[in-house]
Amino acid sequence: MKKILLLGSTGSIGVNTLEVIRKFNDIFEVFALTANSNITLLEKQVKEFNPKFVVVKDKNKAKELKNLLNGKCIVLSGSEGLIEITKNGDYDILVSALVGFAGLAPTIESIKRGKRIALANKETLVAAGEIVIELAHKYNSEILPVDSEHSAIFQCLVGEENKTIEKLIITASGGPFLRKSFEDLKFVKVEDALKHPNWDMGNKITIDSATMMNKGLEVIEAHWLFNLGKDKIDVVVHPQSIVHSMVEFIDGSIKAQLSMPDMKLPIQYALTYPKRLESAFVDTHFPTLKELTFFEPDFNKFQCLKLAFDAMTEGGTAPCILNAANEIAVDKFLNKEIKFLQIPELIKKSLESIEILNKIDFDTILECDLKTRELTLTLDT
Amino acid sequence: MKKILLLGSTGSIGVNTLEVIRKFNDIFEVFALTANSNITLLEKQVKEFNPKFVVVKDKNKAKELKNLLNGKCIVLSGSEGLIEITKNGDYDILVSALVGFAGLAPTIESIKRGKRIALANKETLVAAGEIVIELAHKYNSEILPVDSEHSAIFQCLVGEENKTIEKLIITASGGPFLRKSFEDLKFVKVEDALKHPNWDMGNKITIDSATMMNKGLEVIEAHWLFNLGKDKIDVVVHPQSIVHSMVEFIDGSIKAQLSMPDMKLPIQYALTYPKRLESAFVDTHFPTLKELTFFEPDFNKFQCLKLAFDAMTEGGTAPCILNAANEIAVDKFLNKEIKFLQIPELIKKSLESIEILNKIDFDTILECDLKTRELTLTLDT
Repeated sequence: MKKILLLGSTGSIGVNTLEVIRKFNDIFEVFALTANSNITLLEKQVKEFNPKFVVVKDKNKAKELKNLLNGKCIVLSGSEGLIEITKNGDYDILVSALVGFAGLAPTIESIKRGKRIALANKETLVAAGEIVIELAHKYNSEILPVDSEHSAIFQCLVGEENKTIEKLIITASGGPFLRKSFEDLKFVKVEDALKHPNWDMGNKITIDSATMMNKGLEVIEAHWLFNLGKDKIDVVVHPQSIVHSMVEFIDGSIKAQLSMPDMKLPIQYALTYPKRLESAFVDTHFPTLKELTFFEPDFNKFQCLKLAFDAMTEGGTAPCILNAANEIAVDKFLNKEIKFLQIPELIKKSLESIEILNKIDFDTILECDLKTRELTLTLDT
Repeated sequence: MKKILLLGSTGSIGVNTLEVIRKFNDIFEVFALTANSNITLLEKQVKEFNPKFVVVKDKNKAKELKNLLNGKCIVLSGSEGLIEITKNGDYDILVSALVGFAGLAPTIESIKRGKRIALANKETLVAAGEIVIELAHKYNSEILPVDSEHSAIFQCLVGEENKTIEKLIITASGGPFLRKSFEDLKFVKVEDALKHPNWDMGNKITIDSATMMNKGLEVIEAHWLFNLGKDKIDVVVHPQSIVHSMVEFIDGSIKAQLSMPDMKLPIQYALTYPKRLESAFVDTHFPTLKELTFFEPDFNKFQCLKLAFDAMTEGGTAPCILNAANEIAVDKFLNKEIKFLQIPELIKKSLESIEILNKIDFDTILECDLKTRELTLTLDT
């Protein structure tokens, strides 16, 4: 039995992870679950999966849950609780499915223990890729991608040598505003931005898809995960989200990984790798797919994508600033404090205002993240 | 340096193979070339690639070439010459690119010597799959597919376990008559059938593409090559010939291999496997592909495809009869002796007239092939 520590169990990835664990309950068991504040769902999950520990970020909610569970499992709270459980818990696999920068610190604790990391938290690699990959090598920790795009690339690379990669071709659905003009984007509403055509995800990532920042973050993530320069990573728009990504090799051969969109597939692969186990989560019937289309992304319309490529090229703390500014800007947009096109504007201003450092260590990253958030919060638009 | 024995050097696969060898002349050298009768091209190839031997099937043409080459290399002739060179020659890799049943005997000689076989001759596995695969295991001979479809599957399976295959999805361009009705097919001319939309190939295989028998032969070939039952092999029509084939795994994940159509890519892979070497034979630019479409094949219209699936299910000598009858029928069509839709009719009649045997050995196969040819030649349509 492999014991799983699931960070972010009440989010979209968390819920899907538990579906995979339920299906394979003969090989996986839940060691601990964590959530921010949704204790209603967390209580249900605890009752079904019997973890030894739960961590609730919100301390009041943690107390509430403790009363509800009545000793059924140990309840920890706050960021300290997250660190405590990743640092000292008796588990085999960390599923890192927190949203945003918050996922970084506990993921690093787990890497330092040489655990297998099923990584859904892309901000970990975006903000601190250099440190994280270095630590993973040092502590012999396997980082297995859960993002459908990176899982696709990872699957295409099984049995292949990394030095034979010509380039990665990361597919992008293009989000809900693919067909809108730049002018139209001025007036989009939060409700429209939350309607993703193919994937059912949390709010933050859904807005990131609408701005295509999500794809930008994935490009930076791929850069670290597969140790490739930015000239080796292309983004191609593929509205059907069937081809999850591709690898082109130096001989001109291209491998792609495909399926109907379902996060349970890459989650399962990250948990069972190098094995594939039989499951019926997705069924892709080619004759009904009709057509798969591909075209170039519009970097003028989706400025966040351009900002991300630029931040990757810049290196140092630039991606950390990009990420932190984006988190604040998306929050502001969701709270209707700014308009859709002000998201890239805020990020751009933050990148221009904060000094980009090349020396990177964990404290520098934490400080840079904090500084960026403070600045972006106060920036006029 | 790896020494290559190229059977069928003046055909489409042969010419492409020599292009690959020219590009990688630091690691490959030509040991021997063989052709049926095109000594004009063969002479040029000898002058460029300096093989130790050439074999010309046509004995008169062999004499002519001998005079032309004037001692530059040793000229053998006839089927005996082919067997002689495969059985006793000093080479590392056999590229088996003869057309039709003629490829079987020399390929078997090479397998018995434990050579690597780059197999482009699909009839070898169609007519005698059971024997050939058994011998390959016994003599530890690697059979590497050169057909773009089987190469695609082979590439998708690198690093994966065969037991995790849910099914193979073999793509078919559908040939030049994809959009025609069954009624239209009654009147197609040889010239129309020879116009393949995507691939530039020899006459026999081009007609096989027009009838979709080619896809049927590939299904039977895949059945032997990947040791899979017929319920595990699907055909899907994909007119653009960009996705060369796919593998669906038991976890629902699908891997595909893609590129612009160019035979040099699978040829190179079969020669260099497990390595991939840099080359610029194909360049696939996704944004210009526009769309990839997929739909089910019409088994009523393409009766050859149905006949092939049925022969595979029947087993024994049925695929051998199918193949031999098809070779004769295609020949008759190319000679304008029969109409396009009479190709499947002749094959069907042959399959109904000749007893299908379950005990298979090399002599049974030879006899069955001969008998089928004789019968099909004389069949009224």
